[in-house]
Amino acid sequence: VLGAIAGPDRPTRAQIAGRTGLTKTTVSSLVDVLVGAGLVSAGDPDRGLVGRPGSPLDLDPRGPAGLGVEINVDYCAATIVDFAGQVRAEWSEASDHRRLPPGEVLDRAAALGRRALEAVPGVAVAGLAVAVPGLVDLDGRLRRAPNLPGWEDLDVARELEARLGTDFALLECDNEANLAALAERWFAEPASRDFVHVSGEIGVGAGIVVNGALWRGASGLGAELGHVMVDPGGPRCTCGARGCLEQVAGLEALVRAAGGPAGAPGSDLGRAREELVRRARSGDPETLAALGRAGAALGAALAALVNLIGVSSIILGGVYADLAPFIIGRVADELGERVLSHAWAPVTLGVSPLGQGAAVLGAAATPVRRILADPVAWFPEMLTVSAVGG
Amino acid sequence: VLGAIAGPDRPTRAQIAGRTGLTKTTVSSLVDVLVGAGLVSAGDPDRGLVGRPGSPLDLDPRGPAGLGVEINVDYCAATIVDFAGQVRAEWSEASDHRRLPPGEVLDRAAALGRRALEAVPGVAVAGLAVAVPGLVDLDGRLRRAPNLPGWEDLDVARELEARLGTDFALLECDNEANLAALAERWFAEPASRDFVHVSGEIGVGAGIVVNGALWRGASGLGAELGHVMVDPGGPRCTCGARGCLEQVAGLEALVRAAGGPAGAPGSDLGRAREELVRRARSGDPETLAALGRAGAALGAALAALVNLIGVSSIILGGVYADLAPFIIGRVADELGERVLSHAWAPVTLGVSPLGQGAAVLGAAATPVRRILADPVAWFPEMLTVSAVGG
Repeated sequence: VLGAIAGPDRPTRAQIAGRTGLTKTTVSSLVDVLVGAGLVSAGDPDRGLVGRPGSPLDLDPRGPAGLGVEINVDYCAATIVDFAGQVRAEWSEASDHRRLPPGEVLDRAAALGRRALEAVPGVAVAGLAVAVPGLVDLDGRLRRAPNLPGWEDLDVARELEARLGTDFALLECDNEANLAALAERWFAEPASRDFVHVSGEIGVGAGIVVNGALWRGASGLGAELGHVMVDPGGPRCTCGARGCLEQVAGLEALVRAAGGPAGAPGSDLGRAREELVRRARSGDPETLAALGRAGAALGAALAALVNLIGVSSIILGGVYADLAPFIIGRVADELGERVLSHAWAPVTLGVSPLGQGAAVLGAAATPVRRILADPVAWFPEMLTVSAVGG
Repeated sequence: VLGAIAGPDRPTRAQIAGRTGLTKTTVSSLVDVLVGAGLVSAGDPDRGLVGRPGSPLDLDPRGPAGLGVEINVDYCAATIVDFAGQVRAEWSEASDHRRLPPGEVLDRAAALGRRALEAVPGVAVAGLAVAVPGLVDLDGRLRRAPNLPGWEDLDVARELEARLGTDFALLECDNEANLAALAERWFAEPASRDFVHVSGEIGVGAGIVVNGALWRGASGLGAELGHVMVDPGGPRCTCGARGCLEQVAGLEALVRAAGGPAGAPGSDLGRAREELVRRARSGDPETLAALGRAGAALGAALAALVNLIGVSSIILGGVYADLAPFIIGRVADELGERVLSHAWAPVTLGVSPLGQGAAVLGAAATPVRRILADPVAWFPEMLTVSAVGG
């Protein structure tokens, strides 16, 4: 019933009964329980009376909301998404986290989260989900972040919860590329139920959705696209290996290759990102050549991903969304040449409308989605009401 | 019950009852049905009597057998595996299939299959499974075989069935690397339930087993390891792209790089394979250098596979099984350097005991395994007997 209400069209009780196969009486009882729990709101005061002209139902924006915090290499972000799926607060801040101890970065991220919470005083935030640029195991521990030295074997979500001084009913941490892919699925509604969302930041990540759900691979760690080798003679990567994709197509490598300031501190990298896009749009030859090389390398790595995993659709996100006009042709060429099934099942290639904000948006929406999927687990009192009301 | 009998220890009816939680009476009835269907044989004449000292049960080698046929680039093979899992006939023949029209290769493969069938006149063969070096869709159609020009969009299993003039109850076709991985799982019993079996032939394939079952990826086409790019400036591949793994680490590339005869016809390639192994064992510097480069490229491609898919164990098969002493060190070095989770979850690396025969063995065992998994689907008369007997 909650799933039907969460759809885009504000159904009435009668419409829900039609779609779910439940009787109108049962639907009405269940809706009353959901309204009582504060999860659903009805469009007119006749709610609860069966048989009257139906009142349109919607998720209640005063219901449990989610706080998403992203700690990336060169910025932090915090976003609050309410139960109806609307963004209620958004903050982000540039700073180079490679130059700071993890504890200080966590303090800054917590301060940003607190600002977001304080911006929406009336909203009850039920959960916190954190996006990080590294390998996160199925218990939510960050095992390693190649671009953030010193971040190893850390329960980032619990560290932030402690700093915020709040107990969240839901607490999670995941790889930023995974959360960006979920945001793509939930907010951008791509045509295909199988896709890979590519997060182009300083690191290059891939979040893979198969049959509408996140696919984490056999080990649960997800797909590390940025460390696919694209050139055996390439430069040394932060992970220790040579010739990884990130060293050709990551944001910092792009800024350097396009003639921007090398090794810029974080606050400059935000400007360098804008400068890179500006130079590309102005047709600067050095910048366009660097982006062409990056597109070819990204295409080769994505072809390996498609040949190995078999996803049918690729969505370019993060900084690649802004740079798409200058790289997408080379990416498409490499896919056309390298993907073995291309002749009869060409891979579709698109650009994310979400850009850099995808990961923190996916994080903020994660607690809300968990509650929608299993409301009784989070609001056990509904069971009692249900037994009485139904 | 059939699953318990298929185990390695020849259990009695009482032991099966203990393991399955069924009553001894039920187990006895079911065993009688299986014996009646010719799938199970009992070790002494007291079968069917409950309470007596148990007679050990085993799969009946006179039960339905499987015919496996492999059509690879430079050889054909045919194998028959009986219902008890024993190889009853094995034939193989070298010939370069790139120089023959597909129809003639199918004739030769059918002739080999017929010889295998004629070698075991008393055995009832219930199914045919075919291994091919290309992309096979979920309907069993070969869509494309980069190393076999002209083999496109072909129902190879049905072509062979027609040539053999037999109707098989089970008819399948799959990628040779997938069937080799299944043979590894069924006959070599690797320690890990998650592994990738690498088939080193003229093409380089990967069969991935996750949680004990074949993993075919989101598209169902499986993992095309041989076409992962390992060198952007590398030679042109048969697939049309540049720098694919096969062009450095495939058998023909190895023979060429080690100073063997380039472009040898198939009958010579069998000898060239032996010559390659002989030269490596004798310490020929040119051969060892070529194998070192192949090992590094194979390791980089496998690291991409592990970083993207997350399997925990790699088994080198095909010609790599013979060449393992000369390549495994470089493969391990690349994995150690490139796999991001290596520090806390190192990938294990082993060698298949099955060698080149893995794919056709997996093919021959496939029909038998299908019947073991769902005997009633293939012997519906058992249901009637069961209703009467139970």
